[in-house]
Amino acid sequence: MDYQQIRYEVAQGIATLTLNRPDKLNAFSIRMMEEMIDAFDRADADDEVGAVIVTGEGRAFCAGADLEMGAKVFDAAGGPDSPIRADGSIDYASPHARDYGGRLTLRIFESLKPVVAAVNGPAVGIGATMLLPMDIRLASETARFGFVFARRGIVPEGASMWFLPRIAGIDRALEWCMSGRLLEAEEAREGRLVRSLHAPDDLLPAARALAREIVDNAAPVSIALTRQMLWRGLGMAHPMEAHRVDSRGVLARGRSGDAREGVVAFLEKRPAVFPDRVSNGMPDYFPWWEEPGYF
Amino acid sequence: MDYQQIRYEVAQGIATLTLNRPDKLNAFSIRMMEEMIDAFDRADADDEVGAVIVTGEGRAFCAGADLEMGAKVFDAAGGPDSPIRADGSIDYASPHARDYGGRLTLRIFESLKPVVAAVNGPAVGIGATMLLPMDIRLASETARFGFVFARRGIVPEGASMWFLPRIAGIDRALEWCMSGRLLEAEEAREGRLVRSLHAPDDLLPAARALAREIVDNAAPVSIALTRQMLWRGLGMAHPMEAHRVDSRGVLARGRSGDAREGVVAFLEKRPAVFPDRVSNGMPDYFPWWEEPGYF
Amino acid sequence: MDYQQIRYEVAQGIATLTLNRPDKLNAFSIRMMEEMIDAFDRADADDEVGAVIVTGEGRAFCAGADLEMGAKVFDAAGGPDSPIRADGSIDYASPHARDYGGRLTLRIFESLKPVVAAVNGPAVGIGATMLLPMDIRLASETARFGFVFARRGIVPEGASMWFLPRIAGIDRALEWCMSGRLLEAEEAREGRLVRSLHAPDDLLPAARALAREIVDNAAPVSIALTRQMLWRGLGMAHPMEAHRVDSRGVLARGRSGDAREGVVAFLEKRPAVFPDRVSNGMPDYFPWWEEPGYF
Repeated sequence: MDYQQIRYEVAQGIATLTLNRPDKLNAFSIRMMEEMIDAFDRADADDEVGAVIVTGEGRAFCAGADLEMGAKVFDAAGGPDSPIRADGSIDYASPHARDYGGRLTLRIFESLKPVVAAVNGPAVGIGATMLLPMDIRLASETARFGFVFARRGIVPEGASMWFLPRIAGIDRALEWCMSGRLLEAEEAREGRLVRSLHAPDDLLPAARALAREIVDNAAPVSIALTRQMLWRGLGMAHPMEAHRVDSRGVLARGRSGDAREGVVAFLEKRPAVFPDRVSNGMPDYFPWWEEPGYF
Repeated sequence: MDYQQIRYEVAQGIATLTLNRPDKLNAFSIRMMEEMIDAFDRADADDEVGAVIVTGEGRAFCAGADLEMGAKVFDAAGGPDSPIRADGSIDYASPHARDYGGRLTLRIFESLKPVVAAVNGPAVGIGATMLLPMDIRLASETARFGFVFARRGIVPEGASMWFLPRIAGIDRALEWCMSGRLLEAEEAREGRLVRSLHAPDDLLPAARALAREIVDNAAPVSIALTRQMLWRGLGMAHPMEAHRVDSRGVLARGRSGDAREGVVAFLEKRPAVFPDRVSNGMPDYFPWWEEPGYF
Repeated sequence: MDYQQIRYEVAQGIATLTLNRPDKLNAFSIRMMEEMIDAFDRADADDEVGAVIVTGEGRAFCAGADLEMGAKVFDAAGGPDSPIRADGSIDYASPHARDYGGRLTLRIFESLKPVVAAVNGPAVGIGATMLLPMDIRLASETARFGFVFARRGIVPEGASMWFLPRIAGIDRALEWCMSGRLLEAEEAREGRLVRSLHAPDDLLPAARALAREIVDNAAPVSIALTRQMLWRGLGMAHPMEAHRVDSRGVLARGRSGDAREGVVAFLEKRPAVFPDRVSNGMPDYFPWWEEPGYF
């Protein structure tokens, strides 16, 4: 896929995905969604990529949907694929009924590589909700966050009703989404939407340092398993479900070349050189879940 | 319903529900529960009400159950409706077996209007647990909080075993409920039970300003949907469940008059005047869940 | 059971469980797991024990698995009970497939007595994850925490994929487990893994004071119920499930001798002397859940 609205660069084991419509404040589009999903597919398939950084070109991270279309920007009516029927009623069972933001966030949720957000400026609407399935969010002191949906007459999307209360707490999630107000960087940090704030010039270096710390020290297959374990553990009803999954992980990974190398390197006080790769080294029990379909 | 133990006043789009037994420190009673539930029903049905503030008259918010009845205050025995059988055993399947605190908190959970607590003084027992399904909790610096159940030989009620660990974290929830100690306002804030502390005279103005910010800027139907989405998202096992719900929201709300007005008003840099009302403007897929019954 | 790797002492209503292999930095072993589980069984069965403190002897809390075995330390192959088949494949359905860490954490999860961790020094691997089902974590300023699994080529265990994101937030859980780095005490506190930090000499006194506050004020049966209610409420999908449980609790406990004493003592402004004991005073509806099996 040829990227028109994002850039995707791999250097030193880290992929950087840059939203790249700076003249439009990196406004979200279906094309951008498709390119981002493609980029995450690429990162997962590429053993050279140990982590993904997501950032924005120019002064914004992502201003959300492009409102220049005007009054009907959020109206799905029109076109042969529309889930809106001729009589104006909605076909919720249409294959085209799925929210674009959610398609993206669910794809990020399934990533096998750590995802670090470097929020360089305003992140509004889908620009804010797309951050939620990313693992660690760093932000510039100039960043702003807006869950503005209720101010535009719509609703929070991107499966943010699942992610946001778990990340920021139900009270902040409600306040932010019901008021729809723009949050200063510090309020976002205090509410745990953001891990840490940085001077604009320090943001990408800080994101890279954090990604480096993971990539340089941990085994790629262990990282991929760990990422999925923790996100999916968050939805489990009982720790016994977790015990079933990690028992398998301990057995399978415990006899891997990675585990032998990890222990020996530790005892020899040297960096480990892990042999297993995500492309062909995931254990036989993975994935341990059945992914729910939309329909 | 004629209110004897609460006051209910609507002004400028905000309903204020005031617990009003100041001589008894606003002690909770079955009557008070019935009046509060009625008031929430009224607020939900009244398009003039954009948000609800809950506070207490006098120096307390709510001192919990009225212990003046003495040793048997928590004993449900006696009377024709009692779930306690003649032989002293308990009929858990009795229609009268349901905890009064939980009836109230589950009703608040279902509210279609934002609920802001203005905790003006001590909030103890059900006075503390009734706060949990409210969306945002502001408190006076003189407020105190007591999950005192284990000190009285009973157990946390009001479905607080669901709400409290999600709001304050499982560690604080356990410490507070197992010790039963009274929390200073600052400990409650630090533990995220409370959003912010205010001088006594500034409390209600701060609660009103927060309610105002929501009411003046967001679309009522979007607020009602958002409130239910976030609370219910908190109980979902997988973000795909959220994706199914918000996809419907994006489709239905995206072509609403509210969405058109929201976008146009934003582009015209003027306040939006949203046409849809909660009384008749909720989308056809709402409610998207089947509410579980008690039995 | 004769304890070789832990000490277990009861004084003034508090059991102290001390990991006791100081020459090995209290490294975890199957024997230690068995002794700890036995000690929790003992504490639950002993009405003289109102709370349990867990700490480590010497300068470490628990350094994790004993890596002295070398490269194969995590390999379950070998021996008649091994879940590794002769051909090297894994029998996940073997009765010996269960992770040892998870057996311990699930046992702590089921405790009827409050569990206070006094983390006196480094807590690494299972030394860190065993802390998660404990209720309140206090730590020395010299404590360190390491979810180092991915650095050793394995995965987080002890059902930590369920516990850790609920305690520290999904973002911290991911960062800590994917990087595998050692956390300073302050980072652990800031991330809510730890409640409070103490000078080394003040740690055990602080843990005892906290345990005392619970034991001296609350009814043992109420504490046991409260502990299970809050932990299990954390996994419930809907507050109605909680309402069903606490309604039963209010009915059963409301007519107990404890409730009568709790109210009367409060009115008489004297310490309560609760008559009910965990050994024979748990209400008839307890346990209200069916514990899931591993298989």
